[in-house]
Amino acid sequence: MTTSHGRLYIVGLGPGDAGFLTHDASAALEEAQDVIGYAPYVARVPARPGQTRLASDNRVEIDRAREALSRAAAGRIVAVVSGGDPGVFAMASAVFEAVELGEPTWRDLDIRVLPGISAMQAAAARLGAPLGHDFCVISLSDNLKPWDAIAARLGHAARGDFVIALYNPASRARPQRIHHAFAILRELLAPETVVVFAKSVGRAEENILVTQLAAADPSQVDMSTLVIVGARGTRVIARTAGKPFVYTSRKAP
Amino acid sequence: MTTSHGRLYIVGLGPGDAGFLTHDASAALEEAQDVIGYAPYVARVPARPGQTRLASDNRVEIDRAREALSRAAAGRIVAVVSGGDPGVFAMASAVFEAVELGEPTWRDLDIRVLPGISAMQAAAARLGAPLGHDFCVISLSDNLKPWDAIAARLGHAARGDFVIALYNPASRARPQRIHHAFAILRELLAPETVVVFAKSVGRAEENILVTQLAAADPSQVDMSTLVIVGARGTRVIARTAGKPFVYTSRKAP
Repeated sequence: MTTSHGRLYIVGLGPGDAGFLTHDASAALEEAQDVIGYAPYVARVPARPGQTRLASDNRVEIDRAREALSRAAAGRIVAVVSGGDPGVFAMASAVFEAVELGEPTWRDLDIRVLPGISAMQAAAARLGAPLGHDFCVISLSDNLKPWDAIAARLGHAARGDFVIALYNPASRARPQRIHHAFAILRELLAPETVVVFAKSVGRAEENILVTQLAAADPSQVDMSTLVIVGARGTRVIARTAGKPFVYTSRKAP
Repeated sequence: MTTSHGRLYIVGLGPGDAGFLTHDASAALEEAQDVIGYAPYVARVPARPGQTRLASDNRVEIDRAREALSRAAAGRIVAVVSGGDPGVFAMASAVFEAVELGEPTWRDLDIRVLPGISAMQAAAARLGAPLGHDFCVISLSDNLKPWDAIAARLGHAARGDFVIALYNPASRARPQRIHHAFAILRELLAPETVVVFAKSVGRAEENILVTQLAAADPSQVDMSTLVIVGARGTRVIARTAGKPFVYTSRKAP
């Protein structure tokens, strides 16, 4: 497809399995002349003759966003690809930050965000419906915000009896964040609070553990783990075979 | 497709436009022998010869869930359909509540939740990346929980400087909920806090308003509106033409 005007798609690839892709996301990946993203995400896009592929390191989000914007401004059809939903702790915020701080003409580019299934949704679907009532979503990454702000949010989420989904619970450089977070949650929540560690959801090595706050071992959490901490209304349904269902009641507990 | 064992899919249809459907959701809708759901959602499923379609009123979620479980237990391939993501204020929680309270054999049924793009994700994508950092998701419906619990959660979300997505902000029977919610938020948040009213996202009548807390008029909010209230890090980027971009910075403000 050729065009005289550039366009920037910011595409959510979902959490691994291609079945999570939306039809709009698939269409944008076919249309794109340039595919830009963190290398493991670019590798998930089916190769197409003539399509340029630019795979980069994960720590250069703003550079990647600028490169994508420059290409769209030059008339290219560009797809920035992101795991999960690009709007949830992923590339979309970096692209709009680059727009705000970059060339004034970038503000009038044709930029289209195509949402995807985020890790919390895929994990919730595997379990039942743990996000079935009011919930909070918190990134534990303290690269760009102080730990005190994260700790305060964890406190509000726990006191408000929200279900809590934790992204970026640990990194190679900072494996201790999830231990600090659990210390805060254990002060505020009942020992029998439902806790889920959902590792590599949607990928071959998927592994989901359902436990309780008192028994949960944060050292089992790694970069690929999505952590869900239940509210008072979160319930576990035992089954004869296989892992239990987990859901959060729509009623006040 | 025939099978000797029943199966229950709980399928997210996304927020209107078929482009938001995932490939897994499309496949399940084709495979299903019985499609069950609130009438406007069933109407969005392409008709297929031989497929039974059971459309019901919105207020009988548990009855609908029991009907679906009974059919799956009898060996049928059943799809319960839901707008958005069935795991976010939609049918999945009702189905698992019915499992917990229903026939013991229902616990061992093959139940598969297929997540969808929720209204907040579609609205966020249209705007830019307002959910690009820590956020809370709250239903204002007080059908199943007391208003005091909702008010307390709004307070925690505001004090924690979360972006806030509000579902079910008003209903025909209770149009005042969003007024009460804004009264709470205006006590706690700055007048210039970014507010978005996203009406009928993904449908022909889509209408998105970007404003500020001081100027926002809650009487413009109806049943089909998703409300997003920004955090301190939520920013608006003006454009020469068209509506502005809205995104939440990944950095502490």
